[in-house]
Amino acid sequence: MAEDNTIFIGEKPFMNYVTAVVMQFTTKNASDIFIKARGKFISRAVDVAEVSSKRFLNGQADVGDIKIDSEEFTNKEGRQVRVSTIEITLKRK
Amino acid sequence: MAEDNTIFIGEKPFMNYVTAVVMQFTTKNASDIFIKARGKFISRAVDVAEVSSKRFLNGQADVGDIKIDSEEFTNKEGRQVRVSTIEITLKRK
Repeated sequence: MAEDNTIFIGEKPFMNYVTAVVMQFTTKNASDIFIKARGKFISRAVDVAEVSSKRFLNGQADVGDIKIDSEEFTNKEGRQVRVSTIEITLKRK
Repeated sequence: MAEDNTIFIGEKPFMNYVTAVVMQFTTKNASDIFIKARGKFISRAVDVAEVSSKRFLNGQADVGDIKIDSEEFTNKEGRQVRVSTIEITLKRK
């Protein structure tokens, strides 16, 4: 399932995410994995993609498609809020 | 020159960047503009691209290629530091 290959970036320690990405490729033999984040975690998602692909999976996986989008939702105060999203694909070489 | 069509995202008020992007399309008649950022400003660059293209340039410009990369440099303490970068292209429709 596609969802199994998706890593959502949040507040956990940085290396947790890098390890999760590397494990998907090395032990679960994934061909594509999707790194997703919203709002302020977008910068971190790019860091996870860069460190995973360049430092740990160098030669095994590359950054593929990158998509950005917006989500609208209603916050606790009842206001309409827009938040940016990113999806970075890492592809097995 | 390509550099004229590049907007670097930093600490200025958010709408300064959105205005700069919209002006490039509307008064300077650019066909492509490049939104660039490093480190923590990457999230903001995505926000600028999303708000500019969806709220202000809807129908006039779309998000095109998105590239991420890393830069290595030596910081004030003499340590080697890695920082992620992003370049988001907005293309006139």
